[in-house]
Amino acid sequence: MTPAMLTFDVFGTVVDWHASVTREGEQLAAACGLDGIDWAAFATAWRGRYGPSMAPIRDGRRPWVRLDVLHRENLVATLAEFGVEGLSDAQLDHFNRAWHRLDPWPDSVAGLTRLKSRCIVAALSNGNVELIVNMAKHGGLPWDVVLGAEPARQYKPHPDAYLRSAAIMGLDPEQCMMVAAHPSDLDAAAALGFRTAYVHRPAEMGPGRTVDMPARDDFDFSASSLEDLAAQLGC
Amino acid sequence: MTPAMLTFDVFGTVVDWHASVTREGEQLAAACGLDGIDWAAFATAWRGRYGPSMAPIRDGRRPWVRLDVLHRENLVATLAEFGVEGLSDAQLDHFNRAWHRLDPWPDSVAGLTRLKSRCIVAALSNGNVELIVNMAKHGGLPWDVVLGAEPARQYKPHPDAYLRSAAIMGLDPEQCMMVAAHPSDLDAAAALGFRTAYVHRPAEMGPGRTVDMPARDDFDFSASSLEDLAAQLGC
Repeated sequence: MTPAMLTFDVFGTVVDWHASVTREGEQLAAACGLDGIDWAAFATAWRGRYGPSMAPIRDGRRPWVRLDVLHRENLVATLAEFGVEGLSDAQLDHFNRAWHRLDPWPDSVAGLTRLKSRCIVAALSNGNVELIVNMAKHGGLPWDVVLGAEPARQYKPHPDAYLRSAAIMGLDPEQCMMVAAHPSDLDAAAALGFRTAYVHRPAEMGPGRTVDMPARDDFDFSASSLEDLAAQLGC
Repeated sequence: MTPAMLTFDVFGTVVDWHASVTREGEQLAAACGLDGIDWAAFATAWRGRYGPSMAPIRDGRRPWVRLDVLHRENLVATLAEFGVEGLSDAQLDHFNRAWHRLDPWPDSVAGLTRLKSRCIVAALSNGNVELIVNMAKHGGLPWDVVLGAEPARQYKPHPDAYLRSAAIMGLDPEQCMMVAAHPSDLDAAAALGFRTAYVHRPAEMGPGRTVDMPARDDFDFSASSLEDLAAQLGC
């Protein structure tokens, strides 16, 4: 049976953060005359601080802040790590909002549009609402609703991020299916009763990195793209 | 200058609640063999309890509950007022969700689609997120984001409903324009810095009722439909 709602991880699953952030770094470097920075490595390092930066909030050691705030703190730290100095506040703010301008994977808009004809398609991301909405405007992603960390006031994989998102829509977890390129996200959702669809995104970490495909029977569905998932769900 | 975000009142401005609730009442009556109820009058009476039911929450005398809860309480009271008895819980729940199935005015989908090409189009309704999203799926309303009472945890015209909605999107009130068929909603938003667009919906209260058109200079824009507003904004 088709679930009432598909809840999507966004970074890596729907959009290609690595290529987009790399491109924005290269644009910044060209505008500022910065030389010698490997912006693909920078993108990976910036993203590497994402998980650890949410941990104090999930653990209750830090009050809730939206992801834009964590991204900004992590940007400052990553720039220091790479020895980049002298950017203005306006340049930092613009670069930080690179996460609002991530490009969809080539199949994402078409796949979401097909899936939206049969189910509610919801972003269930750690990105804040403004970030996800601006990204949708940038790339044409047709979300029905933006759920996830900000409405739930908690970051995935904390159970509240999933359960409060379902509750906002008046749905039980069993009526929802989590769609993600990351088994850990799917496992957290499955433990609460969500159905699961794995989407394989081997290029998420950039060229030259590989991601093993999990066993097909680990999840309810396993797809090579959002269009493939739409086909499997009969949309 | 085009605002960054248009924030829309929904009941009456984007959808025709009176005709839709009347129709749902007539369908319920046909299914249950209920005779002699004036369902247009019922719709007006049910809606009449809406404003008073939010007052205790705005005043801090009652903790936040979503509008579905208030609608349900008001439905029970209105059924008693009209002498309707014997409906099952399932029938009450279905009728209560008539507010999730309100039909758009004939210009709403085309108008929002045009406006969406230039601005963020946001629901800023007292309806809860589930209600607004289900209504959008029912009628094809292309919201970019659902803001309003539930994300803000406060009902219009309390200032928090407007200010927190703008803040979620990282916008100042001056970057937003409230669009509504109700001068009181526009006045509350304008007092906080929002720009305003009045949309004339003379049929909102049903056939045979009239609504005076306010003076054109009371608001930044005054439009006969959402398509007219799109034209005036150059979309």
